[in-house]
Amino acid sequence: MSKQIIYPGAVIGIIGGGQLGKMMAVSAKQMGYKVAVVDPVKDSPCGQVADVEITAHYNDREAIRKLAEISDIITYEFENIDYDALHWLKDHAYLPQGSELLLITQNRETEKKAIQSAGCEVAPYSIVKTKNELKQAVQELRLPAVLKTCRGGYDGKGQFVIKEEAQMEQAAALLEHGTCILESWVSFKMELSVIVVRSVNGEISTFPTAENIHHNNILFQSIVPARVEKGIQQKAADLAVKLADELNLVGPLAVEMFLTEDGELLVNELAPRPHNSGHYTLDLCETSQFEQHIRAVCGLPLGKTDLLKPGMMVNLLGDEVKLVEEDPELLKEAKLYIYGKHEIKKGRKMGHITFMKQPEDEWIQEITNKWMNRDGGQAE
Amino acid sequence: MSKQIIYPGAVIGIIGGGQLGKMMAVSAKQMGYKVAVVDPVKDSPCGQVADVEITAHYNDREAIRKLAEISDIITYEFENIDYDALHWLKDHAYLPQGSELLLITQNRETEKKAIQSAGCEVAPYSIVKTKNELKQAVQELRLPAVLKTCRGGYDGKGQFVIKEEAQMEQAAALLEHGTCILESWVSFKMELSVIVVRSVNGEISTFPTAENIHHNNILFQSIVPARVEKGIQQKAADLAVKLADELNLVGPLAVEMFLTEDGELLVNELAPRPHNSGHYTLDLCETSQFEQHIRAVCGLPLGKTDLLKPGMMVNLLGDEVKLVEEDPELLKEAKLYIYGKHEIKKGRKMGHITFMKQPEDEWIQEITNKWMNRDGGQAE
Repeated sequence: MSKQIIYPGAVIGIIGGGQLGKMMAVSAKQMGYKVAVVDPVKDSPCGQVADVEITAHYNDREAIRKLAEISDIITYEFENIDYDALHWLKDHAYLPQGSELLLITQNRETEKKAIQSAGCEVAPYSIVKTKNELKQAVQELRLPAVLKTCRGGYDGKGQFVIKEEAQMEQAAALLEHGTCILESWVSFKMELSVIVVRSVNGEISTFPTAENIHHNNILFQSIVPARVEKGIQQKAADLAVKLADELNLVGPLAVEMFLTEDGELLVNELAPRPHNSGHYTLDLCETSQFEQHIRAVCGLPLGKTDLLKPGMMVNLLGDEVKLVEEDPELLKEAKLYIYGKHEIKKGRKMGHITFMKQPEDEWIQEITNKWMNRDGGQAE
Repeated sequence: MSKQIIYPGAVIGIIGGGQLGKMMAVSAKQMGYKVAVVDPVKDSPCGQVADVEITAHYNDREAIRKLAEISDIITYEFENIDYDALHWLKDHAYLPQGSELLLITQNRETEKKAIQSAGCEVAPYSIVKTKNELKQAVQELRLPAVLKTCRGGYDGKGQFVIKEEAQMEQAAALLEHGTCILESWVSFKMELSVIVVRSVNGEISTFPTAENIHHNNILFQSIVPARVEKGIQQKAADLAVKLADELNLVGPLAVEMFLTEDGELLVNELAPRPHNSGHYTLDLCETSQFEQHIRAVCGLPLGKTDLLKPGMMVNLLGDEVKLVEEDPELLKEAKLYIYGKHEIKKGRKMGHITFMKQPEDEWIQEITNKWMNRDGGQAE
């Protein structure tokens, strides 16, 4: 565990120029760091606030070399970084998060095994490489079940919910992308997530447990605190800390979980980066997940993560980003973040709004209806 | 009063690229606006986060013309903008804050008169153009008194505290800069400030009343809430609202006041822009003064200004910016802002730290000692 502190004024190199990179960069620049970013898209969201923008694919070795050359420290905003590039970086730059956890979480099979070896529960699963193995797995795990590619895929991409045998053929198309994993469908009471952050010097902190509502497998709302007993919230936080220690985490880790009907917590997914379900921390917590990420990798003391106000984050997908123009009064008790992506695409994360008030069913339903009843809303 | 709303995606042109411009730009960009900035310094703090940086003097008509051309709305981060440039902008761009209040506050004489005509109290003063007039004013107002240039001057520059007659000659040197104003020295119990923000559609909101401690006429600490009875805090807020309405304010106005020994509030200075004594709002309030500035001039609903946590802001002047490297543990319960200025100069505002905890005499004294006892600290 390195004790190196990277002080403001240094250059932080970020691989990935999306919204996570942008919000990380904003925190870093407020603290006085410089920021360089590599991303295939020119004038990416992060590029719009960075000091140096390198426009190239993530596995472009020349671009990665240049980022390493001008940066005092390297971090990343997404986990599917090319293994070779990562390996090279480990030897030629200061990559406090290392490559281990990234490699583990890049593959659902290694991720499940790591979670289990950390002593945490996951939904029953089976690794599937062929149609035959898919048939056997379905017999074993029963339907409904979810088939996911082991590699790649996020926000609902690269997965297929199999409700009946007739859909197996269609689901099997995923096998063309490589090894898959069939997971039992969990009839959960609630989906929760905890962002845990561990610093290079081992200091660890968790953010309040969030309750997440997904539509079409994409996060729609995060309610904080989660509307469950404090004991469950604490259990979720303890589980995240356990994973962080076992996986020798440096930086942020989003731990998504199912709360089952009988009160058990099953870990669903890990993401070793800031996470959509942690955007609420920008406004509702004493420290944001983005600032905490910078503090952790740079070796500064972690900030406190107290919840200053309860509330709810809602994603703006596709043309939902026009909601503010349709109803500016939405912003009366809410904070607006628009990421600066140049093209509106259906289902694409264009921004988010965080409502800063006590989550009550009535106004949550009003907000849900407002989003759902737009033509082209998330309901489709 | 215009009802025009400028939505995210539009370009906000900012005159002035210092820290106020930077923190304004960061808020604007998080909300999805683009930012263009004019400043004489290349890679200015605001330039480091802006989309377009125009490096030219504020009164460079070509630069102002270009800013107007590419911006959907113009605002500013400091008040000493060249009158002609302002006048031109009023006719060729959308300048919701207009030029009136700016012109009033650019001159201490017009500022005092405007405050008085709004029905607010100021310290006794006298306008002084010659040494003779200075003598008369001193006889009338008695010593100690403060001689200030009517134009220009901030952070203690352009003013001289006359404690005894022997200093009159030295003070009179200020007269070379133009008309001056002699103000009675107010033996105040406390210095307070309120940031009031009024939107283009007349909506108005105030931030919590701050208690300000100055060293060498430069702000050193802002404690929030001010350690005075709620009644006084409210009286200060009401006074700020009164000024905002009377002066037909659009945007932010910092109202600095003296709380006299007998509980009276005397308005000391106005600044129609975000203010150093409002930096605490970035972390301690539901909405920051910078975000509220953007909301106000763009016509969006104003955000709530509730104090989420009490605390204290402390400026980092000159090489105090190295304090974090000297004692990183300072950041355990504090937020760090370093503005990105390229040259450390004594007394120059390089950044600030906001401590997020209940202001208690003991730790405030510890912090004060830490700043004071550095060699080259503010004590000199």
